[in-house]
Amino acid sequence: MFKGIAASPGIAVGKALVLKKENIIIERKKVDDLENEKNRFQEAVKVSRTQIERIKEKAGEEQKNIMDAHIMILEDPELLSNVEDKIQSENINVEAALDDVLNLFIAMFESMDNEYMKERAADIKDVGQRLLMNLLGKEIPNLSVLKDEVVLVAHDITPSDTAQMDREKVLGFITDIGGRTSHSAIMARSMEIPAVLGLKNITEQVKTGDYVAFDGDEGVVFVNPEDSVVKSYLERKEKELAVKRELMRLVDSQSVSLDERRVEIGCNIGNPQDATKAHENGAEGIGLYRTEFLYMDRTTLPSEDEQYQAYKAVLEIMGGRPVVIRTLDIGGDKELPYMNLPKEANPFLGYRAIRICLDRKDIFKTQLRALLRASVYGNLKIMYPMISCVEEIRSANRILEEVRQELDRENIAYASDFEVGIMIEIPSAAVISDLLADEVDFFSIGTNDLIQYTTAVDRMNEKISHLYNPFNPAVLRLIKTVIDSGHAAGIWVGMCGEVAGDKRLIPILLGMGLDEFSMSAGSILPARKQIQNLSYEKMKALADQVLKMKSAEEIEKFVAQNV
Amino acid sequence: MFKGIAASPGIAVGKALVLKKENIIIERKKVDDLENEKNRFQEAVKVSRTQIERIKEKAGEEQKNIMDAHIMILEDPELLSNVEDKIQSENINVEAALDDVLNLFIAMFESMDNEYMKERAADIKDVGQRLLMNLLGKEIPNLSVLKDEVVLVAHDITPSDTAQMDREKVLGFITDIGGRTSHSAIMARSMEIPAVLGLKNITEQVKTGDYVAFDGDEGVVFVNPEDSVVKSYLERKEKELAVKRELMRLVDSQSVSLDERRVEIGCNIGNPQDATKAHENGAEGIGLYRTEFLYMDRTTLPSEDEQYQAYKAVLEIMGGRPVVIRTLDIGGDKELPYMNLPKEANPFLGYRAIRICLDRKDIFKTQLRALLRASVYGNLKIMYPMISCVEEIRSANRILEEVRQELDRENIAYASDFEVGIMIEIPSAAVISDLLADEVDFFSIGTNDLIQYTTAVDRMNEKISHLYNPFNPAVLRLIKTVIDSGHAAGIWVGMCGEVAGDKRLIPILLGMGLDEFSMSAGSILPARKQIQNLSYEKMKALADQVLKMKSAEEIEKFVAQNV
Repeated sequence: MFKGIAASPGIAVGKALVLKKENIIIERKKVDDLENEKNRFQEAVKVSRTQIERIKEKAGEEQKNIMDAHIMILEDPELLSNVEDKIQSENINVEAALDDVLNLFIAMFESMDNEYMKERAADIKDVGQRLLMNLLGKEIPNLSVLKDEVVLVAHDITPSDTAQMDREKVLGFITDIGGRTSHSAIMARSMEIPAVLGLKNITEQVKTGDYVAFDGDEGVVFVNPEDSVVKSYLERKEKELAVKRELMRLVDSQSVSLDERRVEIGCNIGNPQDATKAHENGAEGIGLYRTEFLYMDRTTLPSEDEQYQAYKAVLEIMGGRPVVIRTLDIGGDKELPYMNLPKEANPFLGYRAIRICLDRKDIFKTQLRALLRASVYGNLKIMYPMISCVEEIRSANRILEEVRQELDRENIAYASDFEVGIMIEIPSAAVISDLLADEVDFFSIGTNDLIQYTTAVDRMNEKISHLYNPFNPAVLRLIKTVIDSGHAAGIWVGMCGEVAGDKRLIPILLGMGLDEFSMSAGSILPARKQIQNLSYEKMKALADQVLKMKSAEEIEKFVAQNV
Repeated sequence: MFKGIAASPGIAVGKALVLKKENIIIERKKVDDLENEKNRFQEAVKVSRTQIERIKEKAGEEQKNIMDAHIMILEDPELLSNVEDKIQSENINVEAALDDVLNLFIAMFESMDNEYMKERAADIKDVGQRLLMNLLGKEIPNLSVLKDEVVLVAHDITPSDTAQMDREKVLGFITDIGGRTSHSAIMARSMEIPAVLGLKNITEQVKTGDYVAFDGDEGVVFVNPEDSVVKSYLERKEKELAVKRELMRLVDSQSVSLDERRVEIGCNIGNPQDATKAHENGAEGIGLYRTEFLYMDRTTLPSEDEQYQAYKAVLEIMGGRPVVIRTLDIGGDKELPYMNLPKEANPFLGYRAIRICLDRKDIFKTQLRALLRASVYGNLKIMYPMISCVEEIRSANRILEEVRQELDRENIAYASDFEVGIMIEIPSAAVISDLLADEVDFFSIGTNDLIQYTTAVDRMNEKISHLYNPFNPAVLRLIKTVIDSGHAAGIWVGMCGEVAGDKRLIPILLGMGLDEFSMSAGSILPARKQIQNLSYEKMKALADQVLKMKSAEEIEKFVAQNV
C-alpha cells in the first residue's frame, strides 16, 4: 500500500504498465567543429517537429492545442538562437548547450507564480526532453499503441504522453512526482482518468504486469493486493458505474424541485468540443462560454472568421438552447504573450477583461462582429465580464451599437433579439446591482472572483486559503442582493462560478431564487438529481436563516444538518 | 520659462544654488595586486560609513532612518562579497567591480514593481555614488552649511542630500530628472519644500546666483524673470502664508458644523515625530498610527521595549486625546525582507496584516504587550487591520486576552478601559458591518483599500487609474452602510483613508454621519475650516441624494455644484 496525492477521482483496477524513462546523461565537452553541432541541432528540431505533428494527427482537440504549443516552442527564435550562441561562445557540444538553455528557460517559467506559466514550464521540459532524446538517438516511448487496458505507472506524465494516450485503454495512472495542480493532474481530471500522483518512487516499486488498484479520491494505491481488496475495488467501481448510469437517465429531464420550481442547469465550456460534452450530459444551455481559449496558445489574435466559426458551432450544437458567450476575459492569471500586456504587481486587480476590451476597441469589435454574425444560428446571449460600474456597460453597448450599424451597412444578417448581460464578479457590481439591472437583460454571478475580491483573498494563494470560503456570510449576502435586484427589475439571474455546481451550496442558491446554475459537464446530472429532491419553499426558509448567521463555519454546519 | 513636473506644492522665489555633480568616469583595468584593491574597497566603506554617521547626527528623525538604511546597505554582506568576488575572479580594479555590482543591484530593485523597493534603488545609488567618490578621492557636496536662503538646482536630489538639507535655508528645489513618485518628490512633499522635477537640463540653463521663481503646483519655472513676474510670485507667496496664518488660528477650535454637529479631526501618523506635527496642526487625536514603520528599514523585528517606547511617546504627546494604534499591517506593498514573506502573485490579495499576525502569534503578542504596557500613558485605542470576517476579530481578541492575563500574572499595569476596533477596508467587512459592530468598540474605514477591493482596481496601476474613484456609487453605499451599522450598534465610526481629507468628499461624509476624520497633518486645518462652514442637515440631504445616483461622474458633478 502506497500513499500519494489524490489527483483525479475514480476507481482504477488493472494490470500495471511501467513506463521506464531513461535517465539521460548529458556529456559536456569542448568541440572544434561548431558547425556540425549546429547542424545536429537543426536536425533534432526537424525530427522532433515531425514526431509532434504525428502525435497531433491522432490527438483530441485539447491535446492538439498542446501539441501546437510544443511546435511553437520548437520554433521559438529565442530558444534556437540561445543554443546556437552558446555552442559558438563556449565551444561546447549541442547537448550541453541545449541542456543549459533549457534549464534556464524552465527555471524562469517555473519561478513565475502563475498557473499558466508553470504549465508552459512543463511543455518546455517535454519538448526539451524530446530534443535531447533525438540528439542522443534514443527511442521515445509511444503510448498510442497500447493493446490491453492498463494502469500506467510513470515517473511523470508529460503533455506529449497525454496527447498520445488512448483514453479507452488507460484505466488510470500513478506517478512518482506531481501534485494536485501539476500538469498531469489537470490533464487527468480533464480526461476523466483516475490518478494518484507524488508516490515518490512508485516506478521502482511496481513491475509491468503487477496488479494495481486505487481510488483517485483517496490517494492510496494497492499493489498486488489480496483478492478481497481487488473484489471490493471492483465492486466500488461497479457501483460508480451504476450511479453514472442512473444519472444518465436524467439527461432529458428538467431541473425542477419537488414543489415545481424550475431552474436551468447550464454548462461552462471553453470550446465547441466541450459543447458536445455538455449536450451529452444534459445541459439545458451553455451558461458560460469562455472565449479566451480561442486567443491562447497562438501567436496572433484570432480572426473574425475563426471566431465566427467557433461561436456558430457552439450555437448549432446547442440547437436553440441558450448559449451565453462571454466576451474576452484575458489578463489576471490569463496572459497572452503576443499582446504584450504590462507586467502588473497585482494582476487580479489589474488591466483585464472588459477593461482591455474598452481600451482595445479593435479587438472587441472583431469579437462582437463574429458574435453577431453567429447569432442567427441559435439562441445567443452576450455577456461582458469584470463590470464594475454603469459606465462600462454603457461604453460596451455603444461599441456593440457601432457593430450593429456596420453590419447593417454591409447587409450582414444578425439576430434582432439576443440578450446582453454582465458577469457580477466585482463587489461594486453586486452592491449596485439594482442600478446595473436597468441596463442589461441578465446577470451571471461569477463566484470565483466575487469571493476573491469581496474577501481580498487571491484564490491561488495557499497561505490564506482558509479565508477563501463560499460560505462567507458577506459573499452569500451579496449573492442574495444580486438575485433580488435582478428579479426586482424583471431579469433572470444565473451563476457560472464554481459555487453553482457545489452540492453543499446548491440548496442555499435554490432557496435564494437563483434562476440558472452553470457548471462543468460532470456536475450537471448530480446537480439535477439533487434539485429534483429538494423543496424550494424549504430551501427558501433555509436561505433566510443562513443570511442571519455570523460565520462561514456556522452556516456550513447548519446547511449540512438541515438539508 | 521651463516646464517640468509639478512635484511638491508651494511657491519658491529666490537665488539659485546650482549643485554641479561631477561626472564620474569609471576606468576598467586589469590589476595584479588584488589584495590592494580589496583593501581600498574596505577603506572606502569605512570612510563612507563615517560620513553617513556624521550626516545622521544632524538629521531629522525621518532622515535618520534613511541614513540607517544607508549604513545597512554599506554593511550588506551580499554587496561586499559580490564586489570582492568580482575583483578576484575578473582581476579588475575595485571601481569597475563596484560599478558592475551596483548596476546589477540597482536594476534589480528598480525592476520591482513596488514603491518601497524602488526607493531602495535610490538609496543604493546614493551609497554607491558615495563609495565611488571616496574611491576616486573626490569631494562630496555638503548641503548642511548653506549660509543664505537658496533655491537648489541639481541633476537629482539624493537621500543624503535631503538628510543634510537645512529646511530653513532651502526655499525650494528644481532638478533635471525625477517624477511625481521619485524619491526626491516624496521627500520634498514630506519636508514641505516646493519642487519641480524632470526639467531635463535645468542645471545647464541656470547659474548660481540667477533668480528663480516657481509654483510647485504648476511645474513652470522662471529663470531671471521680469520684475512683474517676481512681484506676482512674491504676492502669491504672501497670500499662501496669509492663508496659513489664518488657518493656524483654528488650531485650538473644535470641528463643528454651522448647525452644531461636532466631529473629530484626527491625524494619520507613522512615528512619534509625526505626532508632534499632528499636535501642532490642531489634531484632536491620532486616527491612525501606522506601526509598520517601526518594523521597516532594519534587520530584525523591533523588541517589545522599543515598541513600548514609541507608543508611550505618541500617547504622551497627545496628552489624553484619543490615539488609535493600528497593529502591524505589513505584506501587500509593504515588505519586510527579514521576515522572508512569500513572493505572491497578487500581494494586495495576499498574506498580510492581521492574517500574518494571527499566523505569527509571537510577533502579534509582542506588539500587544507593548501596546498594553503603554496604555497607561494616555487614551489608547487598538485597531486591527484587514478584518474580513467575525472569526478574525474573535481570534485576535483571544490573543489579546492571553496578553492581558500574562500581564496580570506579571503584575504589569495596563489601562482597563481602552477600546478595541477594526479597520473596515475589505468589502466583506463592510457588507457584514452590522455583524462586526457587535464585536468591537469602533470602526475606522480605510478607503484606499476599500476602493481597491470593491472595484477590483490596484490603486498603483496606471493603466486602470480611471476606475479608482472614491465617488464610485458602490463605495459610497458601503461607507454609508458601515456608518449606519456602527451607529445602530452604538459605536463610533471614523475614516483614515485618503478620502477623509479630500475636500470634495468631506461634505458627503459629514452628511452620512461620519464621526471621525483622520488625515495627514497638512489637511487638518483646511478640513476644520471647511466643516465649520457646512450645514450638517444640508449635507445629510445631499448625501441622501448622492446615494441614489448612478455614476461617479454624476455624483462628483452634483457635489461640486451643490456645496
